[in-house]
Amino acid sequence: MILAMTPLRIAIDAMGGDHGPRATVSGAALALAERPNASATLYGRCHLLDVELSRLPAHLAHVCDRIDFVEAGDSLPVDMTPSRILRDARPNSLHASLLALRNGEAQACVSAGHTGAIMALARRDIGMLVNVARPAISAAIPTVSHRPCYMLDLGANVDARAEHLVDFAVMGAAMVRLLDNVPRPRVALLNVGVESSKGERRVRDADALLRAAEHSRFEYVGYLEGDALFTGNTDVAVCDGMVGNVALKSSEGLARMLGERLRGEFQTGWYAQVVGWLATPVLRRFLQELNPVRYNGASFLGLRATVVKSHGSARADGFAYAVRRAVDEAALNLPGRLMS
Amino acid sequence: MILAMTPLRIAIDAMGGDHGPRATVSGAALALAERPNASATLYGRCHLLDVELSRLPAHLAHVCDRIDFVEAGDSLPVDMTPSRILRDARPNSLHASLLALRNGEAQACVSAGHTGAIMALARRDIGMLVNVARPAISAAIPTVSHRPCYMLDLGANVDARAEHLVDFAVMGAAMVRLLDNVPRPRVALLNVGVESSKGERRVRDADALLRAAEHSRFEYVGYLEGDALFTGNTDVAVCDGMVGNVALKSSEGLARMLGERLRGEFQTGWYAQVVGWLATPVLRRFLQELNPVRYNGASFLGLRATVVKSHGSARADGFAYAVRRAVDEAALNLPGRLMS
Repeated sequence: MILAMTPLRIAIDAMGGDHGPRATVSGAALALAERPNASATLYGRCHLLDVELSRLPAHLAHVCDRIDFVEAGDSLPVDMTPSRILRDARPNSLHASLLALRNGEAQACVSAGHTGAIMALARRDIGMLVNVARPAISAAIPTVSHRPCYMLDLGANVDARAEHLVDFAVMGAAMVRLLDNVPRPRVALLNVGVESSKGERRVRDADALLRAAEHSRFEYVGYLEGDALFTGNTDVAVCDGMVGNVALKSSEGLARMLGERLRGEFQTGWYAQVVGWLATPVLRRFLQELNPVRYNGASFLGLRATVVKSHGSARADGFAYAVRRAVDEAALNLPGRLMS
Repeated sequence: MILAMTPLRIAIDAMGGDHGPRATVSGAALALAERPNASATLYGRCHLLDVELSRLPAHLAHVCDRIDFVEAGDSLPVDMTPSRILRDARPNSLHASLLALRNGEAQACVSAGHTGAIMALARRDIGMLVNVARPAISAAIPTVSHRPCYMLDLGANVDARAEHLVDFAVMGAAMVRLLDNVPRPRVALLNVGVESSKGERRVRDADALLRAAEHSRFEYVGYLEGDALFTGNTDVAVCDGMVGNVALKSSEGLARMLGERLRGEFQTGWYAQVVGWLATPVLRRFLQELNPVRYNGASFLGLRATVVKSHGSARADGFAYAVRRAVDEAALNLPGRLMS
């Protein structure tokens, strides 16, 4: 775990996500308890945030003086298109937290709001790194080994060209090297097969570009098929946002279905019910790992400052994970070192 | 279950797949036991096939007179590219079974060989339906409801255009209507979100084409996100082969990882071990559903005759599923009715 030594302030969209302040206030407090140099400003409806703060358990009381609230309106409606969001002049909690990041009042921003909204406002208000043409969303997925695999892009773009995929490879590798202390991450391109003749033109072109250059800071290992994502043999899996988004969400949907089926199997007949009752602690451990499939916290790479998205359905524990991730990325100055 | 009344012969590539004749001979026998009007010709190394035939259990002895063997060489090397396969003049078991289909000696073909090899040889030797520009591979995935969801394309093409996606929708719907007796299947386009502004250009164009036309034989329900594949709300999920292939294989990889983890949880400590032993029948039922994620048997839609691919890792049971599927598709004359 990385502990930043310099004081850092995190701007938090307190109203975003399915659970709003209930998840964001206690999630922020949980994260600050583990990151003593960090403080947080939560943007949203202060009277709602105050209620949640008063509900914090006693063992989190010591972090309250590192939490501030700023009145900033509600979260954005879920059905609002990015173009309407960009034209909308009314205050909202996501926009307020991004402005704090832009104005230097905070060093990172966290939101559980909608990906499209965060991306649209962040590109306008925070801006892109000069040498990155397209941003990418990256999240870690668990594997059979101890190390997660980071996938990117998960939906920031749906028509990435070969050069963009190469940028994603460089950014993903830098993130893993700096955040997870992997000296030379293994980077692969997701494809329909491992043979060089296979797949989309842009993927084959990206493969050629990655093979042509020398990469002292990561190892390009070629193509990766979808079923190998979870084997732990690759640190970074690069793909277009359409492919990554559908693959990740399919996996989440499957995990949810299997969890339900497993519960169902232990409710069929008296024998299964008794064994299911006995197996409760074991099954609970397993089901907790199942949900969510990804570690919570998707990083928006390519922006000029750290922006992390929490899963919309995350509760306090999950939101805390996203906040810790934002603290760690900001502490390392990840955006400034992504293309190095 | 559909029982064809006319006699049908299935040409089987007996050497393909990880388990070769061990899976294909008993798989064919199992399928014929359930399809009394069908017979099978297996192409491969006859002395190996004879050994497997002699090992069939007594309750399958009555199908042996509906099984023939034809000497036809081995399976193709796994690392052979489609272009080399097309140039290769040596006999192989896949090619022999496809030729039998082309020459009218059989009404369907089944192989557990490599997708790329089957597709390349089938396009050349069987040919495409005149009104279909691109073939598509389709397989069923389980859902929380009783009805599976059919995904296509799973990797026949990696650069499908909007018109191709519309063809896939029509073909997938016809297959579900005829094979699964769903009067008006619900068809969706896989995308990164459900809002109309989202996603790749070709997906949005296909959406516009599907909305513009009247579809008396299926219901177009719009976009579908990856996590909704397993909810059972959609009968046919249409996507480009790159997206479908990565999503399906990711799901398979995840299911495998979760199966291993579940076994692992029940081996951690004496309490979990005892409960795991008691839970064996329940867990076995669950793990059987897990593996494989897809019902075995991927249909190649758009060819002029029925070609079904079995999963390479399928054993006799799985291969039998693919053979039964081939019998049913041929009995319904599915290829001739796909674009109706």
